[in-house]
Amino acid sequence: MKQSLIYFEDIFTILNDFIKDYKGKITFLVDENTQIHCLPLVLERCKDLDAATFLEIPAGESAKQIGNVADVWGGMLDLNLDRNSLLINLGGGVVTDLGGFAASTFKRGITFINIPTSLLAMADASVGGKTGIDFKGLKNQIGTFSLPEMVLISPEFLETLPQNQLNSGFAEMLKHGLIRDKKHWQNLVALKSLTPDNVAPYIQSSVEIKRKVVAEDPKEKGLRKILNAGHTLGHAIETYFLNQNIDAYLNHLINGEEALLHGEAVAIGLILEAYISAEKNKLSSEELEEISKGLLKFFPKRNLPTYAEIKNYLLQDKKNENGEIQFMLLDKIGECDSQSIAAEEEVIEAAFQYYSNLEVH
Amino acid sequence: MKQSLIYFEDIFTILNDFIKDYKGKITFLVDENTQIHCLPLVLERCKDLDAATFLEIPAGESAKQIGNVADVWGGMLDLNLDRNSLLINLGGGVVTDLGGFAASTFKRGITFINIPTSLLAMADASVGGKTGIDFKGLKNQIGTFSLPEMVLISPEFLETLPQNQLNSGFAEMLKHGLIRDKKHWQNLVALKSLTPDNVAPYIQSSVEIKRKVVAEDPKEKGLRKILNAGHTLGHAIETYFLNQNIDAYLNHLINGEEALLHGEAVAIGLILEAYISAEKNKLSSEELEEISKGLLKFFPKRNLPTYAEIKNYLLQDKKNENGEIQFMLLDKIGECDSQSIAAEEEVIEAAFQYYSNLEVH
Repeated sequence: MKQSLIYFEDIFTILNDFIKDYKGKITFLVDENTQIHCLPLVLERCKDLDAATFLEIPAGESAKQIGNVADVWGGMLDLNLDRNSLLINLGGGVVTDLGGFAASTFKRGITFINIPTSLLAMADASVGGKTGIDFKGLKNQIGTFSLPEMVLISPEFLETLPQNQLNSGFAEMLKHGLIRDKKHWQNLVALKSLTPDNVAPYIQSSVEIKRKVVAEDPKEKGLRKILNAGHTLGHAIETYFLNQNIDAYLNHLINGEEALLHGEAVAIGLILEAYISAEKNKLSSEELEEISKGLLKFFPKRNLPTYAEIKNYLLQDKKNENGEIQFMLLDKIGECDSQSIAAEEEVIEAAFQYYSNLEVH
Repeated sequence: MKQSLIYFEDIFTILNDFIKDYKGKITFLVDENTQIHCLPLVLERCKDLDAATFLEIPAGESAKQIGNVADVWGGMLDLNLDRNSLLINLGGGVVTDLGGFAASTFKRGITFINIPTSLLAMADASVGGKTGIDFKGLKNQIGTFSLPEMVLISPEFLETLPQNQLNSGFAEMLKHGLIRDKKHWQNLVALKSLTPDNVAPYIQSSVEIKRKVVAEDPKEKGLRKILNAGHTLGHAIETYFLNQNIDAYLNHLINGEEALLHGEAVAIGLILEAYISAEKNKLSSEELEEISKGLLKFFPKRNLPTYAEIKNYLLQDKKNENGEIQFMLLDKIGECDSQSIAAEEEVIEAAFQYYSNLEVH
């Protein structure tokens, strides 16, 4: 399958070259934050974009919904965008996912470019052509598979991020190591602290791991499902927090702490599902311990909802088949089974118990 | 490009065979009319579908909007549909277009089957994988290219249609003749009257014409654009009527007459654009006259809005490039230029004048 070109160097030169001769209209999609912190940086480096317009959506996961897509569609209509127009999504995963969905459905699809500005969007959402929005409080229920024309990754945008956003992306990078590359996992776990400079050198290898998986299975019929490791429970926990108290959640987001971001929920999901991997698959108890320790080093323990509280969200997981809850489980560190495996309620509940008993060092 | 399988015979046997071993959940999408007039017919013939659920949208073009898509998405969630589920769209073009869009975006795409029940949906919308909805009063602005698993065509559903719905589909069939097959045009124009029995034998050849065009150019980069003959002005006129008085329009629809349906607007657009073809392209004045006469035989003259009244709608046409209004123009009967051609305001206005001066025989 065709994949998007992803550039890690000289991205502003590449963007300038692309737009210099571009015949259609060009519009940016930003959120409240990237409009202030990132758009000026791009416009300064790409003089030819001075005349470009921009559309804005609110920041945060709660913005990832159909009402905002409709606003973007309406904005594109108002700007008289046509099939030759270009949408440049400049932001984190919410902007690139929602913007990709809006572009892929506007006049049955216009060209879009992603410039991810969060670590999550760079290391994970940048690959694979998944676009989408949440629906009725459930994650990524609506979307398309659509490839951006190109993805432009520059770690300098990481400097604009609060710490919890950096952590959030780091969880997906750890996941890439756990499912396909033990060395990558070890390199990341060995980092002394999470700073843009420390993490930047490993973005490309994370992207490469994901690229290879997606190239083998673009439509998620088999192998690609391993990218969902940690996500069955991660998504459900994230959704729980998102629905639990949306105002409190938004305030936390703005304060830049305490909110449970996607990757942070995935980090918890990775521990819970590592436990299930030890119970239902071949993961050794030694490696289970190594995984838990490694993740807790960067992701302090949280108070989790109970299994009963997230059960309804689990039932909406896209991997489910015929009512059974399916997990992508590790064989060992660096290898994940590409067949989903169902787990009984008792095992899931025991995973929550295991997490709550973990000792903090 | 892959295309959907289209069946014209034994469709209930084919459907039964497909669903007999189908592992996922099956749901129908219907509108108020097909729920009453068509769904019982299908359920009677396909006993294995007895347990299938159904979702319903309102009837008519004005139902083709995002709020109803969201209702369908919500209904699919409530029914716990997963990626293995199947949506069967049973209805006219609104149901198959909207249902195809809902299916192609639900959990990033589930399988769908189209059973078109209107002549328009059988002879035209059944081919080519275009799904979509109207947006902000503009036709088909939002959508995807997504193929149904199969299309099942049975003329017996035509018996459930009011006469204007039959006419509407017939206009697209005439268009197929005009752009690619003079004989097809002549056969259709020679029909004494428009009845389901008279028109049924020609559905398959219309479908074949469209299939060949789409097969050569699935994403509408070149040749496929000829299917838009008559549609630049047809769409704008249809949109004008749709927005002009939506309540009156709906009432007319329910009464089964006077409303300007899609194909009826296309029939007008074909005459107007035949005039432009004579002015800006190679169409002879003799053939222009033959086209006008042929179309007026089945589509009585209407009072049209002025050019000024539809100009804003023309500016939203998906074929536009850089602000110029583009037309797909005939070289002669049976041949259409695959390059779009721009026409000046004066020429478009003269086309309206030509139409209003046409004599009714």
